[in-house]
Amino acid sequence: MSDLIEQKPPRTVTYQVRVEFGDCDPAGIVWFPNFFRWIDAASRHFFEACGVPRWEETTRTLGVIGTPLVDTQARFIKTASYGDHLQIHTAVTEWRGKSFVQSYRVCRGEDLILECQEVRIFASAREDGSPGIRAVLIPPSIRALCD
Amino acid sequence: MSDLIEQKPPRTVTYQVRVEFGDCDPAGIVWFPNFFRWIDAASRHFFEACGVPRWEETTRTLGVIGTPLVDTQARFIKTASYGDHLQIHTAVTEWRGKSFVQSYRVCRGEDLILECQEVRIFASAREDGSPGIRAVLIPPSIRALCD
Amino acid sequence: MSDLIEQKPPRTVTYQVRVEFGDCDPAGIVWFPNFFRWIDAASRHFFEACGVPRWEETTRTLGVIGTPLVDTQARFIKTASYGDHLQIHTAVTEWRGKSFVQSYRVCRGEDLILECQEVRIFASAREDGSPGIRAVLIPPSIRALCD
Amino acid sequence: MSDLIEQKPPRTVTYQVRVEFGDCDPAGIVWFPNFFRWIDAASRHFFEACGVPRWEETTRTLGVIGTPLVDTQARFIKTASYGDHLQIHTAVTEWRGKSFVQSYRVCRGEDLILECQEVRIFASAREDGSPGIRAVLIPPSIRALCD
Repeated sequence: MSDLIEQKPPRTVTYQVRVEFGDCDPAGIVWFPNFFRWIDAASRHFFEACGVPRWEETTRTLGVIGTPLVDTQARFIKTASYGDHLQIHTAVTEWRGKSFVQSYRVCRGEDLILECQEVRIFASAREDGSPGIRAVLIPPSIRALCD
Repeated sequence: MSDLIEQKPPRTVTYQVRVEFGDCDPAGIVWFPNFFRWIDAASRHFFEACGVPRWEETTRTLGVIGTPLVDTQARFIKTASYGDHLQIHTAVTEWRGKSFVQSYRVCRGEDLILECQEVRIFASAREDGSPGIRAVLIPPSIRALCD
Repeated sequence: MSDLIEQKPPRTVTYQVRVEFGDCDPAGIVWFPNFFRWIDAASRHFFEACGVPRWEETTRTLGVIGTPLVDTQARFIKTASYGDHLQIHTAVTEWRGKSFVQSYRVCRGEDLILECQEVRIFASAREDGSPGIRAVLIPPSIRALCD
Repeated sequence: MSDLIEQKPPRTVTYQVRVEFGDCDPAGIVWFPNFFRWIDAASRHFFEACGVPRWEETTRTLGVIGTPLVDTQARFIKTASYGDHLQIHTAVTEWRGKSFVQSYRVCRGEDLILECQEVRIFASAREDGSPGIRAVLIPPSIRALCD
Protein backbone atom coordinates (compact mmCIF):
# COMPACT_ATOMS: atom_id res chain seq x y z
CA MET A 1 0.00 0.00 0.00
CA SER A 2 3.06 2.19 0.04
CA ASP A 3 2.06 3.65 -3.29
CA LEU A 4 -0.90 5.26 -1.58
CA ILE A 5 1.31 7.28 0.75
CA GLU A 6 1.29 10.83 -0.44
CA GLN A 7 4.70 12.28 -1.08
CA LYS A 8 5.05 15.88 -0.14
CA PRO A 9 6.90 17.68 -2.96
CA PRO A 10 10.32 18.86 -1.78
CA ARG A 11 10.71 22.39 -0.46
CA THR A 12 11.62 24.73 -3.32
CA VAL A 13 13.45 28.01 -2.95
CA THR A 14 13.73 30.52 -5.82
CA TYR A 15 16.82 32.61 -6.48
CA GLN A 16 16.60 35.62 -8.81
CA VAL A 17 19.28 36.48 -11.38
CA ARG A 18 19.67 39.52 -13.62
CA VAL A 19 21.78 38.67 -16.63
CA GLU A 20 24.41 41.34 -17.29
CA PHE A 21 26.31 42.40 -20.43
CA GLY A 22 29.54 40.95 -19.07
CA ASP A 23 27.88 37.56 -18.53
CA CYS A 24 27.51 37.26 -22.32
CA ASP A 25 30.08 36.15 -24.86
CA PRO A 26 30.87 37.40 -28.37
CA ALA A 27 27.81 35.46 -29.63
CA GLY A 28 25.68 37.78 -27.48
CA ILE A 29 24.35 35.01 -25.23
CA VAL A 30 25.18 33.93 -21.67
CA TRP A 31 28.57 32.24 -21.53
CA PHE A 32 27.66 28.91 -19.93
CA PRO A 33 30.07 28.85 -16.94
CA ASN A 34 28.05 31.80 -15.63
CA PHE A 35 25.02 29.53 -15.28
CA PHE A 36 27.07 27.39 -12.89
CA ARG A 37 28.05 30.51 -10.98
CA TRP A 38 24.37 31.30 -10.47
CA ILE A 39 23.47 27.69 -9.69
CA ASP A 40 26.13 27.62 -6.98
CA ALA A 41 24.67 30.79 -5.49
CA ALA A 42 21.19 29.24 -5.67
CA SER A 43 22.50 26.17 -3.82
CA ARG A 44 23.77 28.18 -0.87
CA HIS A 45 20.75 30.46 -0.99
CA PHE A 46 18.57 27.35 -0.53
CA PHE A 47 20.36 26.51 2.72
CA GLU A 48 20.32 30.12 3.84
CA ALA A 49 16.56 30.31 3.24
CA CYS A 50 16.18 27.14 5.36
CA GLY A 51 18.03 28.79 8.24
CA VAL A 52 21.42 27.09 7.87
CA PRO A 53 24.06 29.53 9.18
CA ARG A 54 27.15 30.78 7.31
CA TRP A 55 29.88 28.24 6.67
CA GLU A 56 32.23 29.99 9.11
CA GLU A 57 29.72 29.21 11.84
CA THR A 58 29.12 25.59 10.74
CA THR A 59 32.92 25.19 10.56
CA ARG A 60 33.07 26.04 14.26
CA THR A 61 29.96 24.13 15.36
CA LEU A 62 29.92 21.11 13.03
CA GLY A 63 33.26 21.10 11.23
CA VAL A 64 31.37 21.67 7.96
CA ILE A 65 33.10 24.10 5.58
CA GLY A 66 30.54 23.92 2.77
CA THR A 67 28.82 21.70 0.22
CA PRO A 68 31.24 21.02 -2.64
CA LEU A 69 30.09 19.45 -5.85
CA VAL A 70 30.77 15.80 -6.66
CA ASP A 71 28.78 15.38 -9.85
CA THR A 72 26.68 17.61 -12.08
CA GLN A 73 24.51 17.18 -15.14
CA ALA A 74 22.96 20.07 -17.00
CA ARG A 75 20.78 20.36 -20.07
CA PHE A 76 20.74 23.71 -21.87
CA ILE A 77 17.39 24.31 -23.53
CA LYS A 78 17.17 28.00 -24.44
CA THR A 79 19.70 30.79 -24.52
CA ALA A 80 19.53 33.91 -22.36
CA SER A 81 21.03 37.35 -22.81
CA TYR A 82 21.67 40.53 -20.87
CA GLY A 83 18.59 42.27 -19.58
CA ASP A 84 16.92 38.90 -18.89
CA HIS A 85 15.60 38.16 -15.42
CA LEU A 86 15.94 34.49 -14.51
CA GLN A 87 14.45 32.46 -11.66
CA ILE A 88 16.35 29.44 -10.34
CA HIS A 89 13.98 27.04 -8.58
CA THR A 90 16.03 24.87 -6.24
CA ALA A 91 15.21 21.79 -4.17
CA VAL A 92 17.02 18.94 -2.44
CA THR A 93 15.43 15.98 -4.22
CA GLU A 94 17.27 13.19 -2.39
CA TRP A 95 19.18 12.80 0.86
CA ARG A 96 21.76 10.00 1.02
CA GLY A 97 24.14 9.02 3.82
CA LYS A 98 27.08 11.23 2.93
CA SER A 99 25.69 13.13 -0.07
CA PHE A 100 22.52 14.71 -1.42
CA VAL A 101 20.97 15.55 -4.76
CA GLN A 102 20.17 19.18 -5.46
CA SER A 103 18.01 20.00 -8.49
CA TYR A 104 17.54 23.26 -10.36
CA ARG A 105 15.20 24.64 -12.98
CA VAL A 106 16.46 27.91 -14.45
CA CYS A 107 13.49 29.77 -15.96
CA ARG A 108 12.74 33.09 -17.63
CA GLY A 109 9.13 33.33 -16.58
CA GLU A 110 7.42 30.45 -18.37
CA ASP A 111 10.48 29.57 -20.49
CA LEU A 112 12.69 26.77 -19.22
CA ILE A 113 16.30 27.81 -19.93
CA LEU A 114 18.16 24.91 -18.35
CA GLU A 115 17.81 22.02 -15.95
CA CYS A 116 20.57 20.85 -13.67
CA GLN A 117 20.99 18.05 -11.19
CA GLU A 118 23.92 17.82 -8.83
CA VAL A 119 25.37 15.51 -6.20
CA ARG A 120 26.96 17.45 -3.37
CA ILE A 121 28.51 16.52 -0.05
CA PHE A 122 28.91 18.23 3.28
CA ALA A 123 32.67 18.61 3.60
CA SER A 124 35.22 19.02 6.36
CA ALA A 125 38.77 20.21 6.04
CA ARG A 126 41.37 17.45 5.96
CA GLU A 127 42.69 16.59 9.40
CA ASP A 128 46.26 17.32 8.30
CA GLY A 129 45.40 20.88 7.27
CA SER A 130 46.16 20.30 3.56
CA PRO A 131 43.85 22.15 1.15
CA GLY A 132 41.72 19.10 0.25
CA ILE A 133 38.38 18.09 1.78
CA ARG A 134 36.52 14.97 2.95
CA ALA A 135 32.81 14.07 3.05
CA VAL A 136 31.05 13.83 6.40
CA LEU A 137 27.68 12.31 7.34
CA ILE A 138 24.79 14.70 6.60
CA PRO A 139 24.50 16.68 9.85
CA PRO A 140 21.02 15.87 11.27
CA SER A 141 20.66 19.45 12.53
CA ILE A 142 21.07 20.76 8.96
CA ARG A 143 18.80 18.15 7.43
CA ALA A 144 16.08 18.96 9.98
CA LEU A 145 16.16 22.63 8.90
CA CYS A 146 15.77 21.74 5.20
CA ASP A 147 12.77 19.39 5.23
CA MET B 1 34.84 -9.54 -38.66
CA SER B 2 34.21 -5.91 -37.86
CA ASP B 3 35.66 -6.45 -34.41
CA LEU B 4 39.04 -6.93 -36.07
CA ILE B 5 38.99 -3.45 -37.53
CA GLU B 6 41.30 -1.32 -35.50
CA GLN B 7 39.74 1.82 -34.15
CA LYS B 8 42.10 4.73 -34.11
CA PRO B 9 41.75 6.50 -30.75
CA PRO B 10 40.34 9.99 -31.26
CA ARG B 11 42.76 12.88 -31.64
CA THR B 12 43.52 14.37 -28.23
CA VAL B 13 44.66 17.91 -27.60
CA THR B 14 45.99 19.06 -24.21
CA TYR B 15 45.30 22.50 -22.76
CA GLN B 16 47.40 23.74 -19.82
CA VAL B 17 45.91 25.62 -16.85
CA ARG B 18 47.60 27.35 -13.92
CA VAL B 19 45.23 27.60 -10.99
CA GLU B 20 45.29 31.08 -9.46
CA PHE B 21 44.42 32.39 -5.98
CA GLY B 22 41.30 34.12 -7.30
CA ASP B 23 40.07 30.84 -8.80
CA CYS B 24 39.70 29.47 -5.25
CA ASP B 25 36.87 30.02 -2.79
CA PRO B 26 36.87 30.56 0.98
CA ALA B 27 37.43 26.80 1.43
CA GLY B 28 40.80 27.29 -0.33
CA ILE B 29 39.93 25.05 -3.30
CA VAL B 30 38.95 25.79 -6.90
CA TRP B 31 35.43 27.16 -7.08
CA PHE B 32 33.82 24.73 -9.52
CA PRO B 33 32.44 27.14 -12.16
CA ASN B 34 36.08 27.91 -12.96
CA PHE B 35 36.55 24.32 -14.12
CA PHE B 36 33.85 24.99 -16.74
CA ARG B 37 35.63 28.17 -17.73
CA TRP B 38 38.77 26.14 -18.44
CA ILE B 39 36.87 23.33 -20.13
CA ASP B 40 35.27 25.85 -22.48
CA ALA B 41 38.72 27.20 -23.32
CA ALA B 42 39.96 23.63 -23.88
CA SER B 43 37.04 23.03 -26.24
CA ARG B 44 37.92 25.96 -28.49
CA HIS B 45 41.63 25.22 -28.15
CA PHE B 46 40.93 21.74 -29.57
CA PHE B 47 39.43 23.25 -32.72
CA GLU B 48 42.18 25.84 -32.95
CA ALA B 49 44.83 23.10 -32.71
CA CYS B 50 43.02 21.26 -35.54
CA GLY B 51 43.25 24.37 -37.73
CA VAL B 52 39.67 25.61 -37.44
CA PRO B 53 39.74 29.41 -37.86
CA ARG B 54 38.34 32.00 -35.43
CA TRP B 55 34.55 32.18 -35.14
CA GLU B 56 34.47 35.59 -36.85
CA GLU B 57 35.92 33.91 -39.91
CA THR B 58 33.61 30.86 -39.78
CA THR B 59 30.71 33.29 -39.32
CA ARG B 60 31.60 34.83 -42.67
CA THR B 61 32.46 31.60 -44.49
CA LEU B 62 30.07 29.06 -42.96
CA GLY B 63 27.59 31.05 -40.88
CA VAL B 64 28.96 29.27 -37.78
CA ILE B 65 29.27 31.55 -34.74
CA GLY B 66 30.62 28.94 -32.32
CA THR B 67 29.93 25.64 -30.56
CA PRO B 68 27.47 26.27 -27.72
CA LEU B 69 26.79 23.64 -25.10
CA VAL B 70 23.61 21.57 -25.12
CA ASP B 71 24.34 19.11 -22.34
CA THR B 72 27.16 18.52 -19.88
CA GLN B 73 28.02 15.94 -17.25
CA ALA B 74 30.97 16.27 -14.92
CA ARG B 75 32.36 14.15 -12.11
CA PHE B 76 34.62 15.88 -9.61
CA ILE B 77 37.17 13.47 -8.19
CA LYS B 78 39.89 15.48 -6.45
CA THR B 79 40.17 19.10 -5.46
CA ALA B 80 42.75 21.53 -6.83
CA SER B 81 44.14 24.74 -5.41
CA TYR B 82 46.21 27.73 -6.49
CA GLY B 83 49.70 26.94 -7.64
CA ASP B 84 48.49 23.71 -9.26
CA HIS B 85 49.22 23.09 -12.93
CA LEU B 86 46.44 21.17 -14.65
CA GLN B 87 46.28 19.45 -18.04
CA ILE B 88 42.95 19.17 -19.83
CA HIS B 89 43.03 16.31 -22.35
CA THR B 90 40.30 16.94 -24.90
CA ALA B 91 38.85 14.84 -27.72
CA VAL B 92 35.75 14.70 -29.87
CA THR B 93 34.51 11.19 -29.02
CA GLU B 94 31.42 11.14 -31.26
CA TRP B 95 30.18 13.04 -34.30
CA ARG B 96 26.42 13.12 -34.85
CA GLY B 97 24.36 14.86 -37.53
CA LYS B 98 23.85 18.20 -35.85
CA SER B 99 25.85 17.72 -32.65
CA PHE B 100 29.02 16.16 -31.31
CA VAL B 101 30.34 14.78 -28.03
CA GLN B 102 33.44 16.41 -26.58
CA SER B 103 35.20 14.67 -23.67
CA TYR B 104 37.68 16.02 -21.15
CA ARG B 105 40.00 14.60 -18.54
CA VAL B 106 41.35 17.27 -16.20
CA CYS B 107 44.56 15.98 -14.61
CA ARG B 108 47.29 17.23 -12.31
CA GLY B 109 50.06 15.02 -13.62
CA GLU B 110 48.96 11.48 -12.73
CA ASP B 111 46.00 12.61 -10.60
CA LEU B 112 42.61 12.69 -12.26
CA ILE B 113 40.82 15.80 -10.96
CA LEU B 114 37.60 15.64 -12.97
CA GLU B 115 36.02 14.08 -16.02
CA CYS B 116 33.52 15.85 -18.21
CA GLN B 117 31.47 14.90 -21.23
CA GLU B 118 29.53 17.43 -23.26
CA VAL B 119 27.16 17.59 -26.19
CA ARG B 120 27.75 20.68 -28.31
CA ILE B 121 26.37 21.97 -31.57
CA PHE B 122 27.68 24.16 -34.35
CA ALA B 123 25.41 27.19 -34.17
CA SER B 124 24.24 29.95 -36.47
CA ALA B 125 22.63 33.22 -35.52
CA ARG B 126 18.85 33.27 -35.84
CA GLU B 127 17.69 34.47 -39.22
CA ASP B 128 15.63 37.25 -37.65
CA GLY B 129 18.68 38.72 -35.87
CA SER B 130 17.35 38.00 -32.35
CA PRO B 131 20.02 36.97 -29.83
CA GLY B 132 19.19 33.23 -29.90
CA ILE B 133 20.93 30.54 -31.94
CA ARG B 134 20.08 27.45 -34.00
CA ALA B 135 21.98 24.21 -34.68
CA VAL B 136 23.36 23.56 -38.17
CA LEU B 137 24.68 20.38 -39.78
CA ILE B 138 28.29 19.67 -38.80
CA PRO B 139 30.26 21.52 -41.50
CA PRO B 140 32.21 18.82 -43.41
CA SER B 141 35.16 21.18 -43.81
CA ILE B 142 35.46 21.49 -40.03
CA ARG B 143 34.96 17.78 -39.39
CA ALA B 144 37.68 16.97 -41.94
CA LEU B 145 40.16 19.15 -40.03
CA CYS B 146 39.41 17.41 -36.72
CA ASP B 147 39.77 13.72 -37.60
CA MET C 1 27.47 85.85 -10.39
CA SER C 2 27.95 82.36 -11.79
CA ASP C 3 28.78 81.08 -8.33
CA LEU C 4 25.22 81.84 -7.30
CA ILE C 5 23.79 79.50 -9.92
CA GLU C 6 22.60 76.39 -8.19
CA GLN C 7 24.06 73.20 -9.54
CA LYS C 8 21.64 70.31 -9.59
CA PRO C 9 23.43 67.23 -8.24
CA PRO C 10 23.82 64.63 -10.99
CA ARG C 11 21.17 61.96 -11.38
CA THR C 12 22.10 58.92 -9.28
CA VAL C 13 20.93 55.38 -9.92
CA THR C 14 21.44 52.59 -7.37
CA TYR C 15 22.27 49.01 -8.33
CA GLN C 16 21.86 46.24 -5.73
CA VAL C 17 24.39 43.41 -5.32
CA ARG C 18 24.26 40.28 -3.17
CA VAL C 19 27.75 39.00 -2.47
CA GLU C 20 27.99 35.24 -3.00
CA PHE C 21 30.35 32.58 -1.61
CA GLY C 22 32.01 32.16 -5.01
CA ASP C 23 32.75 35.90 -5.16
CA CYS C 24 35.13 35.46 -2.21
CA ASP C 25 38.71 34.23 -2.18
CA PRO C 26 40.61 31.97 0.24
CA ALA C 27 40.91 34.94 2.63
CA GLY C 28 37.10 34.87 2.91
CA ILE C 29 36.60 38.33 1.41
CA VAL C 30 35.43 39.55 -2.00
CA TRP C 31 38.09 38.95 -4.62
CA PHE C 32 38.52 42.47 -6.02
CA PRO C 33 37.94 41.83 -9.76
CA ASN C 34 34.36 41.00 -8.78
CA PHE C 35 33.87 44.61 -7.68
CA PHE C 36 34.66 45.67 -11.24
CA ARG C 37 32.19 43.10 -12.52
CA TRP C 38 29.48 44.74 -10.42
CA ILE C 39 30.60 48.27 -11.28
CA ASP C 40 30.34 47.44 -14.98
CA ALA C 41 26.81 46.15 -14.40
CA ALA C 42 25.99 49.33 -12.46
CA SER C 43 27.29 51.41 -15.39
CA ARG C 44 24.95 49.80 -17.89
CA HIS C 45 22.11 49.75 -15.36
CA PHE C 46 22.49 53.53 -15.08
CA PHE C 47 21.86 53.93 -18.80
CA GLU C 48 19.05 51.40 -18.76
CA ALA C 49 17.36 53.27 -15.90
CA CYS C 50 17.67 56.48 -17.99
CA GLY C 51 15.87 54.79 -20.88
CA VAL C 52 18.85 54.09 -23.16
CA PRO C 53 18.01 50.98 -25.21
CA ARG C 54 20.08 47.76 -25.46
CA TRP C 55 23.38 48.03 -27.30
CA GLU C 56 22.06 45.89 -30.17
CA GLU C 57 19.48 48.58 -30.80
CA THR C 58 21.94 51.49 -30.48
CA THR C 59 24.26 49.58 -32.81
CA ARG C 60 21.52 49.71 -35.45
CA THR C 61 20.32 53.24 -34.76
CA LEU C 62 23.51 55.08 -33.73
CA GLY C 63 26.38 52.74 -34.50
CA VAL C 64 27.12 52.61 -30.75
CA ILE C 65 28.13 49.16 -29.50
CA GLY C 66 28.65 50.09 -25.85
CA THR C 67 30.62 52.22 -23.41
CA PRO C 68 34.07 50.68 -22.97
CA LEU C 69 36.40 51.82 -20.24
CA VAL C 70 39.36 54.09 -20.93
CA ASP C 71 40.57 54.80 -17.43
CA THR C 72 39.59 53.73 -13.92
CA GLN C 73 40.62 54.60 -10.39
CA ALA C 74 39.31 52.77 -7.35
CA ARG C 75 39.93 53.08 -3.64
CA PHE C 76 39.10 50.06 -1.49
CA ILE C 77 38.06 51.13 1.99
CA LYS C 78 36.38 48.15 3.68
CA THR C 79 36.14 44.49 2.83
CA ALA C 80 32.89 42.66 2.06
CA SER C 81 32.00 39.00 2.28
CA TYR C 82 29.27 36.61 1.17
CA GLY C 83 25.85 37.33 2.55
CA ASP C 84 26.48 41.08 2.31
CA HIS C 85 24.04 43.26 0.38
CA LEU C 86 25.75 46.15 -1.38
CA GLN C 87 24.38 49.27 -3.03
CA ILE C 88 26.26 50.85 -5.92
CA HIS C 89 25.30 54.51 -6.30
CA THR C 90 26.16 55.58 -9.84
CA ALA C 91 26.21 58.95 -11.59
CA VAL C 92 27.71 60.56 -14.67
CA THR C 93 29.70 63.36 -13.08
CA GLU C 94 31.12 64.90 -16.24
CA TRP C 95 30.31 64.91 -19.96
CA ARG C 96 33.17 65.64 -22.34
CA GLY C 97 33.24 65.69 -26.14
CA LYS C 98 34.05 62.06 -26.81
CA SER C 99 34.11 60.67 -23.26
CA PHE C 100 32.38 60.93 -19.91
CA VAL C 101 33.19 60.38 -16.25
CA GLN C 102 31.12 57.83 -14.36
CA SER C 103 31.42 57.71 -10.57
CA TYR C 104 30.46 54.98 -8.12
CA ARG C 105 30.09 54.64 -4.38
CA VAL C 106 29.79 51.02 -3.29
CA CYS C 107 28.12 50.91 0.13
CA ARG C 108 26.84 48.34 2.61
CA GLY C 109 24.15 50.48 4.17
CA GLU C 110 26.06 53.29 5.90
CA ASP C 111 29.49 51.71 5.32
CA LEU C 112 31.47 52.93 2.33
CA ILE C 113 33.19 49.88 0.83
CA LEU C 114 34.85 51.43 -2.20
CA GLU C 115 34.82 54.47 -4.44
CA CYS C 116 35.53 54.33 -8.14
CA GLN C 117 35.80 56.89 -10.91
CA GLU C 118 35.98 55.93 -14.55
CA VAL C 119 36.42 57.54 -17.94
CA ARG C 120 34.36 55.76 -20.59
CA ILE C 121 33.63 56.39 -24.24
CA PHE C 122 30.75 55.62 -26.56
CA ALA C 123 32.29 53.24 -29.06
CA SER C 124 31.66 52.09 -32.61
CA ALA C 125 33.04 49.03 -34.32
CA ARG C 126 36.01 49.67 -36.56
CA GLU C 127 35.05 50.41 -40.13
CA ASP C 128 37.19 47.53 -41.42
CA GLY C 129 35.34 44.98 -39.25
CA SER C 130 38.41 44.14 -37.14
CA PRO C 131 37.66 43.45 -33.46
CA GLY C 132 38.86 46.84 -32.15
CA ILE C 133 36.74 49.90 -31.42
CA ARG C 134 36.82 53.69 -31.87
CA ALA C 135 35.35 56.54 -29.82
CA VAL C 136 32.46 58.56 -31.25
CA LEU C 137 30.97 61.91 -30.20
CA ILE C 138 28.56 61.54 -27.27
CA PRO C 139 25.22 60.93 -29.01
CA PRO C 140 22.97 63.89 -28.08
CA SER C 141 19.93 61.60 -27.92
CA ILE C 142 21.64 59.50 -25.23
CA ARG C 143 22.91 62.48 -23.30
CA ALA C 144 19.42 64.01 -23.28
CA LEU C 145 18.03 60.85 -21.67
CA CYS C 146 20.65 60.90 -18.89
CA ASP C 147 20.41 64.46 -17.61
CA MET D 1 76.34 63.80 -5.87
CA SER D 2 73.34 61.67 -5.17
CA ASP D 3 72.24 62.08 -8.75
CA LEU D 4 75.25 60.07 -9.78
CA ILE D 5 74.15 57.04 -7.80
CA GLU D 6 72.87 54.50 -10.23
CA GLN D 7 69.39 53.27 -9.51
CA LYS D 8 68.92 49.63 -10.33
CA PRO D 9 65.60 49.26 -12.18
CA PRO D 10 63.17 47.23 -10.10
CA ARG D 11 63.00 43.49 -10.64
CA THR D 12 60.41 42.70 -13.30
CA VAL D 13 58.56 39.41 -13.63
CA THR D 14 56.47 38.56 -16.70
CA TYR D 15 53.21 36.63 -16.53
CA GLN D 16 51.74 35.14 -19.74
CA VAL D 17 48.03 35.24 -20.55
CA ARG D 18 46.08 33.61 -23.36
CA VAL D 19 42.85 35.48 -24.00
CA GLU D 20 39.91 33.09 -24.34
CA PHE D 21 36.52 33.39 -26.07
CA GLY D 22 34.73 33.51 -22.71
CA ASP D 23 36.90 36.45 -21.61
CA CYS D 24 35.27 38.56 -24.33
CA ASP D 25 31.94 40.35 -24.27
CA PRO D 26 29.25 40.84 -26.92
CA ALA D 27 31.44 43.55 -28.50
CA GLY D 28 34.01 40.81 -29.20
CA ILE D 29 36.72 42.35 -26.98
CA VAL D 30 38.04 41.49 -23.52
CA TRP D 31 35.52 42.40 -20.84
CA PHE D 32 37.61 44.66 -18.61
CA PRO D 33 37.16 42.93 -15.21
CA ASN D 34 39.12 40.05 -16.73
CA PHE D 35 42.16 42.31 -17.00
CA PHE D 36 42.01 42.71 -13.22
CA ARG D 37 41.73 38.95 -12.83
CA TRP D 38 44.98 38.57 -14.77
CA ILE D 39 46.67 41.46 -12.99
CA ASP D 40 45.88 39.86 -9.64
CA ALA D 41 47.41 36.61 -10.87
CA ALA D 42 50.48 38.54 -12.08
CA SER D 43 50.78 40.14 -8.63
CA ARG D 44 50.95 36.80 -6.82
CA HIS D 45 53.12 35.33 -9.58
CA PHE D 46 55.63 38.11 -8.92
CA PHE D 47 55.97 37.04 -5.29
CA GLU D 48 56.06 33.38 -6.23
CA ALA D 49 58.86 34.05 -8.72
CA CYS D 50 60.75 35.85 -5.91
CA GLY D 51 60.48 32.77 -3.71
CA VAL D 52 57.70 33.94 -1.36
CA PRO D 53 55.81 30.82 -0.21
CA ARG D 54 52.04 30.18 -0.51
CA TRP D 55 49.78 32.30 1.67
CA GLU D 56 48.85 29.27 3.81
CA GLU D 57 52.49 29.02 4.79
CA THR D 58 52.95 32.76 5.42
CA THR D 59 49.74 32.65 7.46
CA ARG D 60 51.43 30.13 9.76
CA THR D 61 54.87 31.73 9.80
CA LEU D 62 54.12 35.47 9.57
CA GLY D 63 50.39 35.83 10.06
CA VAL D 64 50.18 37.17 6.48
CA ILE D 65 47.12 35.94 4.55
CA GLY D 66 47.83 37.79 1.30
CA THR D 67 48.26 41.18 -0.35
CA PRO D 68 44.84 42.78 -0.77
CA LEU D 69 44.34 45.85 -2.90
CA VAL D 70 43.89 49.30 -1.40
CA ASP D 71 43.96 51.45 -4.50
CA THR D 72 44.21 50.88 -8.23
CA GLN D 73 44.50 53.03 -11.33
CA ALA D 74 44.38 51.62 -14.82
CA ARG D 75 44.58 53.15 -18.28
CA PHE D 76 43.18 51.09 -21.15
CA ILE D 77 45.02 51.86 -24.37
CA LYS D 78 44.18 49.11 -26.88
CA THR D 79 41.62 46.35 -26.93
CA ALA D 80 42.43 42.65 -26.96
CA SER D 81 40.43 39.67 -28.13
CA TYR D 82 40.45 35.88 -27.92
CA GLY D 83 43.46 34.21 -29.45
CA ASP D 84 45.72 37.05 -28.25
CA HIS D 85 48.75 36.24 -26.13
CA LEU D 86 49.48 38.93 -23.57
CA GLN D 87 52.52 39.57 -21.37
CA ILE D 88 52.06 41.27 -18.01
CA HIS D 89 55.32 42.86 -16.88
CA THR D 90 55.15 43.34 -13.11
CA ALA D 91 57.36 45.15 -10.62
CA VAL D 92 57.19 46.54 -7.12
CA THR D 93 58.01 50.18 -7.80
CA GLU D 94 57.85 51.46 -4.22
CA TRP D 95 58.02 49.99 -0.71
CA ARG D 96 56.34 51.96 2.06
CA GLY D 97 55.93 51.14 5.74
CA LYS D 98 52.68 49.22 5.61
CA SER D 99 51.99 49.21 1.88
CA PHE D 100 53.72 48.92 -1.49
CA VAL D 101 53.15 50.01 -5.07
CA GLN D 102 52.92 47.31 -7.71
CA SER D 103 53.01 48.35 -11.36
CA TYR D 104 51.95 46.48 -14.48
CA ARG D 105 52.35 46.86 -18.21
CA VAL D 106 50.04 44.55 -20.14
CA CYS D 107 51.46 44.08 -23.64
CA ARG D 108 50.74 42.09 -26.78
CA GLY D 109 54.29 41.89 -28.04
CA GLU D 110 55.18 45.51 -28.87
CA ASP D 111 51.65 46.83 -28.34
CA LEU D 112 50.86 48.34 -24.95
CA ILE D 113 47.31 47.26 -24.05
CA LEU D 114 46.99 48.75 -20.58
CA GLU D 115 48.98 50.16 -17.71
CA CYS D 116 48.02 49.70 -14.09
CA GLN D 117 49.40 50.91 -10.78
CA GLU D 118 48.20 49.56 -7.47
CA VAL D 119 48.72 50.10 -3.77
CA ARG D 120 48.57 46.85 -1.85
CA ILE D 121 49.14 45.85 1.76
CA PHE D 122 50.31 42.73 3.51
CA ALA D 123 47.26 41.71 5.54
CA SER D 124 46.51 39.67 8.63
CA ALA D 125 43.20 38.27 9.71
CA ARG D 126 41.37 40.31 12.33
CA GLU D 127 42.20 39.27 15.85
CA ASP D 128 38.52 38.63 16.62
CA GLY D 129 38.19 36.15 13.73
CA SER D 130 35.70 38.31 11.79
CA PRO D 131 36.10 38.18 7.99
CA GLY D 132 37.85 41.56 7.68
CA ILE D 133 41.59 42.18 7.48
CA ARG D 134 44.21 44.61 8.81
CA ALA D 135 47.50 45.89 7.36
CA VAL D 136 50.79 44.77 8.93
CA LEU D 137 54.33 46.11 8.53
CA ILE D 138 56.01 44.81 5.37
CA PRO D 139 57.67 41.59 6.56
CA PRO D 140 61.45 42.11 6.13
CA SER D 141 61.88 38.46 5.12
CA ILE D 142 59.48 38.97 2.21
CA ARG D 143 60.96 42.28 1.17
CA ALA D 144 64.47 40.75 1.16
CA LEU D 145 63.30 38.09 -1.30
CA CYS D 146 61.83 40.66 -3.69
CA ASP D 147 64.69 43.10 -4.14
